[in-house]
Amino acid sequence: MSEENRRFALAERPQGLIDENTFTLETNPVPGIGEGEALVHVKWISIDPTNRTWIGEEPTYLPPVQIGETMRALGLGEVIASNNENYPVGSLVNGLTGWQDYTVVSDSNPLMVVPDSAKDAPPATLLGMLGMTGCTAYFGMLEIGEPKEGETVVVSAAAGAVGTVAGQLAKLKGARVVGIAGGPEKCAWIVDELGFDAAVDYKADDWKTQLKEATPNGIDVDFENVGGEIMNQVFGRLNINARVALCGLISGYNATERPPDLTNFHKLLINRVKLQGFIILDYYPRFGEAIRDLAGWVAEGKLKSEQTVVEGFEQLPHALNMLFKGENKGKLVVKIAD
Amino acid sequence: MSEENRRFALAERPQGLIDENTFTLETNPVPGIGEGEALVHVKWISIDPTNRTWIGEEPTYLPPVQIGETMRALGLGEVIASNNENYPVGSLVNGLTGWQDYTVVSDSNPLMVVPDSAKDAPPATLLGMLGMTGCTAYFGMLEIGEPKEGETVVVSAAAGAVGTVAGQLAKLKGARVVGIAGGPEKCAWIVDELGFDAAVDYKADDWKTQLKEATPNGIDVDFENVGGEIMNQVFGRLNINARVALCGLISGYNATERPPDLTNFHKLLINRVKLQGFIILDYYPRFGEAIRDLAGWVAEGKLKSEQTVVEGFEQLPHALNMLFKGENKGKLVVKIAD
Repeated sequence: MSEENRRFALAERPQGLIDENTFTLETNPVPGIGEGEALVHVKWISIDPTNRTWIGEEPTYLPPVQIGETMRALGLGEVIASNNENYPVGSLVNGLTGWQDYTVVSDSNPLMVVPDSAKDAPPATLLGMLGMTGCTAYFGMLEIGEPKEGETVVVSAAAGAVGTVAGQLAKLKGARVVGIAGGPEKCAWIVDELGFDAAVDYKADDWKTQLKEATPNGIDVDFENVGGEIMNQVFGRLNINARVALCGLISGYNATERPPDLTNFHKLLINRVKLQGFIILDYYPRFGEAIRDLAGWVAEGKLKSEQTVVEGFEQLPHALNMLFKGENKGKLVVKIAD
Repeated sequence: MSEENRRFALAERPQGLIDENTFTLETNPVPGIGEGEALVHVKWISIDPTNRTWIGEEPTYLPPVQIGETMRALGLGEVIASNNENYPVGSLVNGLTGWQDYTVVSDSNPLMVVPDSAKDAPPATLLGMLGMTGCTAYFGMLEIGEPKEGETVVVSAAAGAVGTVAGQLAKLKGARVVGIAGGPEKCAWIVDELGFDAAVDYKADDWKTQLKEATPNGIDVDFENVGGEIMNQVFGRLNINARVALCGLISGYNATERPPDLTNFHKLLINRVKLQGFIILDYYPRFGEAIRDLAGWVAEGKLKSEQTVVEGFEQLPHALNMLFKGENKGKLVVKIAD
């Protein structure tokens, strides 16, 4: 074990993409533990679009990270010293570790202990398909989107961590699934490897035409990760009684300019659409149920898990920008220790 | 009975408010009736915001009125000749009569016969509180908004036909009710006469401040009739798990310019908001249930019904514009015959 704890602290709130001034890399001694506490060596960090919303000025569903505080993030680590029987040495833990090498847990500042049955899954899978990412797709698609056999489902950011799972879940339910992704390679991948029925390349000039042609019967479910003009065009094709699972609005997270108009907002009225915003933390008490189902489908070969792994603690800020530039396929994780 | 049937036919699709070129007033012989048909003398016409959406180019939940067709509208009339036992002479009928003096009904082109128990209600009440208007407020507020005791409910177009009823229904459920209306007189009226807890005058320069001050605990239910910047500001104050009953977007119906941005759309995500668009025709099979409840509350003095009556067939186009200029209080009807 190192005697040093590296951490990225928020130095200033970014305008647009984060840059070299956003975080400060600091090195401090590894914290000691008191009664009821355990020390976790963080090994993997989950990179999620919502990370960007936590460092804006506006409170979201969590308070903004304050200047000087460690960057908030989900991670996976191992308990290496413990004064708490809930956290035995050697156990794997998953939760809000932050961008740092070591963190202290306790009953009042808990992380989730990975059950033995899941311990052998790859770390990226524990943070992805069998973590918050998979649960987001699970509850958003199955409980809000509720796709039915033969319906048309559109997933935006379809090659991303949540999108890849959400689309496959809709396929499991017998829907026609159309993914919106950036570039021909990702579009081919979600169709050929993940089994989507069609893909729309939003970087192509004719993407609106592609969307029309891919949804000849309109759209019954929009699993919305992106917002902006992509969402607007999807709204324009929603069918009567369509559902919108509003999961993310990634196109706006770095925005510094006026967003495009939602000229098709009125379609929500005319077509009696149900739109439901959701934050996966609200479903925390039900994660067990989701993970059990997801793990079962993975074992049966019905769900494929894909990840992009970046190595090195110092790569964390760069990795976050990769998300917004679309440089990942599936779950994006950073390995910060062996 | 007159031997002439006046009707307003759509002459051209309006840009913005309707004008003297939008409709043509035509006079034709009163239609005869064949087997299974009955002749209805139309006496009252309901003026509703949605009328404007029916003469645009874009299909809504009903196909657009075609050029040359009689303007579509709800109305109330009396059966004056009949070859159909479902429509006895002397019965009152309610439904899509159009802007004309006479219309022919049959089993394949039906209107609703007003039950004897309701026949003595004033015509404006039959078209308003105990018609489509009341049912819209009833299902939108009680089944979508679902206000709970102590919650804050905002109703836009609060002095309009649907808004007045919707706000009173939320009061019945024990909510704090804030109405948004145009001008100090309407604002005073909804508070003093209808029992709203507070009013926001959207024509005042400080209306955004008024909205903040009237909703110190945020907003749990938005009964949305207006859209645009008013809706946007309400979105900005929605609480966690808020509901939006999306009933109308009147601010856009005559719009010829780019609408304002929905800069607060992301609040629907962050605050896990459920937004449900609805069209009252979908609830038609359940109108009886709503009207029974509404009539009961009116009889108990718990709901007040207000109307603005315009007299004269030729006033129909003018009356429709009155809605969009906010020149009515409560239900707006045109009396076209004694």
